[in-house]
Amino acid sequence: MDKQVNSLDSELRNRAKKVVPGGMWGHMNAAALPEGYPQFFARGSGSRLWDVDGNEFVDFMCSWGPIILGHHHPEVDEAAQKQLARGDCLNGPSESMVELAELLVEMLPHATWAQFQKNGSDAMTTAATISRAGTGRRKILVASGAYHGAVPWCSPSLLGVTAEDRAHIVQYEYNDVESLNRAADQARGDLAGIIASAFKHDYGRDQCLPTREFAKAARAAADAADAALIVDDVRAGFRLNLGGSWEAVGVRPDLSAWSKSIANGFALAAVTGNERFRDATSKLFTTGSFWCSAVSMAAAVATLTALRRDNAIEHMERLGGMLRDGLGSLSKTHGLPIRQTGPVQMPMVLFEDDPDNRKGFAFCSATVKRGIYFHPLHNMFLSAAHTTNDIERALDAAEHGFRAVRDSLTNSAGVSRN
Amino acid sequence: MDKQVNSLDSELRNRAKKVVPGGMWGHMNAAALPEGYPQFFARGSGSRLWDVDGNEFVDFMCSWGPIILGHHHPEVDEAAQKQLARGDCLNGPSESMVELAELLVEMLPHATWAQFQKNGSDAMTTAATISRAGTGRRKILVASGAYHGAVPWCSPSLLGVTAEDRAHIVQYEYNDVESLNRAADQARGDLAGIIASAFKHDYGRDQCLPTREFAKAARAAADAADAALIVDDVRAGFRLNLGGSWEAVGVRPDLSAWSKSIANGFALAAVTGNERFRDATSKLFTTGSFWCSAVSMAAAVATLTALRRDNAIEHMERLGGMLRDGLGSLSKTHGLPIRQTGPVQMPMVLFEDDPDNRKGFAFCSATVKRGIYFHPLHNMFLSAAHTTNDIERALDAAEHGFRAVRDSLTNSAGVSRN
Repeated sequence: MDKQVNSLDSELRNRAKKVVPGGMWGHMNAAALPEGYPQFFARGSGSRLWDVDGNEFVDFMCSWGPIILGHHHPEVDEAAQKQLARGDCLNGPSESMVELAELLVEMLPHATWAQFQKNGSDAMTTAATISRAGTGRRKILVASGAYHGAVPWCSPSLLGVTAEDRAHIVQYEYNDVESLNRAADQARGDLAGIIASAFKHDYGRDQCLPTREFAKAARAAADAADAALIVDDVRAGFRLNLGGSWEAVGVRPDLSAWSKSIANGFALAAVTGNERFRDATSKLFTTGSFWCSAVSMAAAVATLTALRRDNAIEHMERLGGMLRDGLGSLSKTHGLPIRQTGPVQMPMVLFEDDPDNRKGFAFCSATVKRGIYFHPLHNMFLSAAHTTNDIERALDAAEHGFRAVRDSLTNSAGVSRN
Repeated sequence: MDKQVNSLDSELRNRAKKVVPGGMWGHMNAAALPEGYPQFFARGSGSRLWDVDGNEFVDFMCSWGPIILGHHHPEVDEAAQKQLARGDCLNGPSESMVELAELLVEMLPHATWAQFQKNGSDAMTTAATISRAGTGRRKILVASGAYHGAVPWCSPSLLGVTAEDRAHIVQYEYNDVESLNRAADQARGDLAGIIASAFKHDYGRDQCLPTREFAKAARAAADAADAALIVDDVRAGFRLNLGGSWEAVGVRPDLSAWSKSIANGFALAAVTGNERFRDATSKLFTTGSFWCSAVSMAAAVATLTALRRDNAIEHMERLGGMLRDGLGSLSKTHGLPIRQTGPVQMPMVLFEDDPDNRKGFAFCSATVKRGIYFHPLHNMFLSAAHTTNDIERALDAAEHGFRAVRDSLTNSAGVSRN
């Protein structure tokens, strides 16, 4: 594709290859994406996103979660600008830290306090450490396949990780009460915490909301051992329930971890907790150079305030439902079964009988060329800025996507007939 | 002090106590500071800082390092605003990531690549993990008492830390070749990396620049084991030498970690490295939601460009020298010996014969009341925005500081005579 070769994106990839190992790291590496996806981005506005070559997309990744009100939400931008004009990184926190902690405590029934960091990994590592500090015990239960960050104790990759980094991690299967209780038994006498994602949202797998039975069993197992129940709300936080994702199943964690959407794209993370773990948390030495930076906290106050006032979750659910229904219909029309799982505002779309992801890639490759930024293997994200028109455009592109899948099957079938 | 009790700072502390464990966490907790220090800050400009009650300070902490050009440096602010108007946190990196990586590779003789994070702890954890990934070995040498972050493998506190978190950490004494070689021997066959701070800057201790002999021995020990020499330049980076702090001793690390001052207060960290560790780094899965955020990268390009063009290090050295000379003279005049150690642009001032820090606290308590923000136990920081007048004001306040120390000694002597 000549257009691609001469693009600024392609030029930047070539420059990046020289000065960044592999050209790009981690989840934002476009090498893991189908043909036609840009690596470098220029700007965003509302539900739209532009790459460095000026191609416009309806954005269904929302920066992999952080953008929950839409890019450049005017109220968040105004709050951030106002704070930035005064100060961001100073010798200590600003008033905005107290305002944000108070707002979180008001919004989250489980929490009486908050503490702030920068990364989701920071929040999860801090929560795990608090559970150990508060119990004097070591074992932490983690669901197999779950993503809780990219640091040695929980990274999905074992490269550079030692066995000792995970010496006290005990695995269980999400939503499987028996395996959870077995893991708790295994940790008996040494159980510090039980970690569960807001819902099961593992890469490339069907999503699954927690069952009430599982959530209650996790609470009971933590209580029986006087250990911490830790809900990882880093990815799902504020998209499912403004009181915390497990409010829907009536179970309250001791500790919750937040990041991504908390400040509509400004870098921030938080741990919230209850009285059981306040004292241990106050004794812990945990810190970072930018953890008190005021702009992200002012942005978070504006973000959470707007989410609550605008019933943003309802809006995301309505449009997510429209997208799911539309994709379901198209799938039937084309005779190409798909699985759509988990909450509609965090869509996960996987093709049946697609072990090598060929169908998903053909689909996304066709839709991205029509200005729809889907992801073939990771859950996607709706924002409060998405419109009915965005969903209609996405479904128009999806029609081409399903055709591309069928064409790719015909072509490969043709090849195999030769 | 009625003024204090009725202050906004005091009101915010009371509110914070309810919703933040202990009222504040980590290194920015003002509870560790002498009487008179504010906890909450409103704004900064150049070398000046204002607390929430409108008290103005000449800032010798520079947000604990990040502010290297002064608060609100116009060129950094302009670059950040320009990028913010387009986009910060998007579905992938922006052009600014490539520009920044290219600039670092150009500036740092040891490096052919860069990778970005948010916290200094991220950079150090990533560097340690790269050393393990690139060698297939596990042991990492760390100087005793050195600060490399507040995560379990390196935190100065052991609360919530398990023995396994440090199973492969081997300690040595900074600047002690024999102890370094002994540690390397102890790790023989399993040595992944040797970590050394840019210089010895442990909390509450005299600082010490690396000796050429020590730096060369660290390089030799790493080479002999084909392990990584990792310089932690998180705190000192870009204040001592724009080519990396160990350029002064003629030793080049394999990996360097950066954060704090890299973007004049915008949240960013980096690992830079050489060809030996490029491949391992490209294979590592390390990532964070905000690690590609463009504003901090645009700010970093503007920061490093200004530092280089303005010979900022020379300026900081000249003013740091003025401060050191002035404090030295006052100390002699008052007959109160102090130890001033390490590089002048990162001043460390400790009173002789002050085991309970009473002298240091009395000194700082007096100077902060006169609008000079010093720290009694942590190294301080000069910035390019400090002026001769700032130093003169600081020395005027220090005159009162020394008097306060003498008064406190007289008073306590009086008490003990009764």
